[in-house]
Amino acid sequence: MNEVQATYLLDAKLDSLEKKAEAIAVGLTVGSWTNLPAVEQKQLERHKGRVIQTKMVSDQKAIITIGYPSLNFSNDIPAILTTTFGKFSLDGKVKLMDLSFSEELKRDFAGPQFGIEGIRALTNTYDRPLLMSIFKGVIGRDLNSLKEQMKAQALGGIDIVKDDEILFENDETPLEKRIPACQEALRASYEETGKRTLHAVNLTGKTMELKEKAYKAVELGADLLLFNVFAYGLDVMQALAEDPNIPLPIMAHPAFSGAMISSPDFGVAPGLLLGKLARMAGADLSLFPSPYGSVAMAKEETQAIARHLTEEDQFKKAFPVPSAGIHPGLTPKLITDFGIDSIINAGGGIHGHPGGATAGGKAFVQAIDAVLNNQSLQEAASDHSELATAIELWGGE
Amino acid sequence: MNEVQATYLLDAKLDSLEKKAEAIAVGLTVGSWTNLPAVEQKQLERHKGRVIQTKMVSDQKAIITIGYPSLNFSNDIPAILTTTFGKFSLDGKVKLMDLSFSEELKRDFAGPQFGIEGIRALTNTYDRPLLMSIFKGVIGRDLNSLKEQMKAQALGGIDIVKDDEILFENDETPLEKRIPACQEALRASYEETGKRTLHAVNLTGKTMELKEKAYKAVELGADLLLFNVFAYGLDVMQALAEDPNIPLPIMAHPAFSGAMISSPDFGVAPGLLLGKLARMAGADLSLFPSPYGSVAMAKEETQAIARHLTEEDQFKKAFPVPSAGIHPGLTPKLITDFGIDSIINAGGGIHGHPGGATAGGKAFVQAIDAVLNNQSLQEAASDHSELATAIELWGGE
Repeated sequence: MNEVQATYLLDAKLDSLEKKAEAIAVGLTVGSWTNLPAVEQKQLERHKGRVIQTKMVSDQKAIITIGYPSLNFSNDIPAILTTTFGKFSLDGKVKLMDLSFSEELKRDFAGPQFGIEGIRALTNTYDRPLLMSIFKGVIGRDLNSLKEQMKAQALGGIDIVKDDEILFENDETPLEKRIPACQEALRASYEETGKRTLHAVNLTGKTMELKEKAYKAVELGADLLLFNVFAYGLDVMQALAEDPNIPLPIMAHPAFSGAMISSPDFGVAPGLLLGKLARMAGADLSLFPSPYGSVAMAKEETQAIARHLTEEDQFKKAFPVPSAGIHPGLTPKLITDFGIDSIINAGGGIHGHPGGATAGGKAFVQAIDAVLNNQSLQEAASDHSELATAIELWGGE
Repeated sequence: MNEVQATYLLDAKLDSLEKKAEAIAVGLTVGSWTNLPAVEQKQLERHKGRVIQTKMVSDQKAIITIGYPSLNFSNDIPAILTTTFGKFSLDGKVKLMDLSFSEELKRDFAGPQFGIEGIRALTNTYDRPLLMSIFKGVIGRDLNSLKEQMKAQALGGIDIVKDDEILFENDETPLEKRIPACQEALRASYEETGKRTLHAVNLTGKTMELKEKAYKAVELGADLLLFNVFAYGLDVMQALAEDPNIPLPIMAHPAFSGAMISSPDFGVAPGLLLGKLARMAGADLSLFPSPYGSVAMAKEETQAIARHLTEEDQFKKAFPVPSAGIHPGLTPKLITDFGIDSIINAGGGIHGHPGGATAGGKAFVQAIDAVLNNQSLQEAASDHSELATAIELWGGE
């Protein structure tokens, strides 16, 4: 059937579960059913929601799956969210756990334009996790300071350096100045190392001006776009991803998503929002809190996000980017938990290295090499002073 | 100071509260502080967040207010949400309770284009709450059915009839057909009653196509726009409100907002999202769950929303629209709780009237008249059969 199937976790009682599910299926589609004349039932049949699953999972909680006919909505994310979790999001303890789309519905979504393969080609990195770092403390800093920070990171062997997501347009370092300056730093580092590092540029400002800004970023030489998609809307990211005049990978940042995914009883499951929907709406990379740091997410949630980003589908695969609290000593765990088709992303774990950001990058490169060569970090550290210093500071298995 | 002040409710301990607040103020702005050289501290001083308030409100919960210098962000809602509740929204139990904007920051937001006064002028209704009703069960129905339903509602004396928020573009009743057909029904009802009823049309589809669609709705004669703003993004609504080519009031629907406002520990306070921010971003009317129905919101939350919509500010006032579970018997309570500068909005309480939607509308008109004339509903019911029937069915005080 051409429909979207929504799965909810909600408060329910066994003896009224079926009735409740049927009330949702009817209430969120045709409105009423049992009191309709037969001729109207026949006319509305194909618009009526259907109960697909009802299951108590504890004394008070149930899982319910409802199918919503695609005839009822236009095939865009705002319409799908309004249909499946519009008014219903306000109806007591209820969390949207999953949305499943029929093949026909999925065809209208392009998904990632580059995906894991495309990003690997751009960064010329194969058979290993990518390494990413984040500008730190750049608010209020001038262009030279940014350039220096960029070059220091790139010299450490980083694949992608991302802007800080809280860096907006400002007099000192707006797009027009920031992109060329950073590209200059990246060319300088390339001349020294032969390694090309890419720059993910934060695309910010008013929604209706984003496309023009993105065109400008393309023209100025940006390598990727960083986007605070959940402060805007998934459909806005989709519009950017679908625009042929914006031929850049999009990195979805989870800023503000905590307002929707953090509660166990309300909102949207992290795997659905940061995984499945982000991928459908065109994210080539999706950041989410790692299960290790101080800002941690439960490991099963992070695994669900990563699974949604990388499982077989008609869409290209997107890179999972577990972030926060990452240091070189976590590399074995990261590769075990997220595989080589993931990105190791560090801020403090690069900039906080006693030898500076370049040494911080090198320590990660050394750690990744070690893991891929089945070497323990301790062993690798004996030949690599940057890794040794990192392990001494932050530990390592 | 030119800043936005964000107030959070979060898990905290008294002995580390100050330290935690300072870490947030620094972490979400300049990144680090105490370890910076004095010359850099001087350079970054005006970018540094400041702790304005810290207060334990229970053994485990604290209220913290942080000021973020406006120098740090572009003055748009996505940038403000990313700055104040971006990464921080993912940092354990934390809820964004309020945002206060300096006068200078507010100047960039136009607020409602019509506001309460403008809507009163459009509907020619003064000194009383407005009466609104909602199309019901329109999915899968044809144009004639919509026209009939529209006329039946209008004949009851309704001020504004709103589309169902789950009615999207479809073959039977797309904008192009729906708006003229409903206007025809409204003209017919005007000829019978001399009362003009307005139609709020659901603006749906992809974000980047909304403006063109709104222009078309204007051209076709729509009276207001209904908008599922939280399935899109507040900034999208602001773009619609600010466009001089869309000279229509905007009715903000709370669909999907439950994902953000329902948890006591996470997300955003309802008064902030559906009240203050909706008004700043241009909502002329804001719907929210009433404190009375089965899909109920706590009364203090509904009062906070209404207060944010109507308190003195540089913005025009917006209409609070408590919705769901409303029947004529609740009219005295609604007017006591929300005043006459509010909208009484009913779906089932109009369509479910034993005499049909027209009688349902009349019962509400009679109830409103009674309350404004200091008459009890029981008393008024003795002269008005529609109200009598409604009270018999649903009760009334």
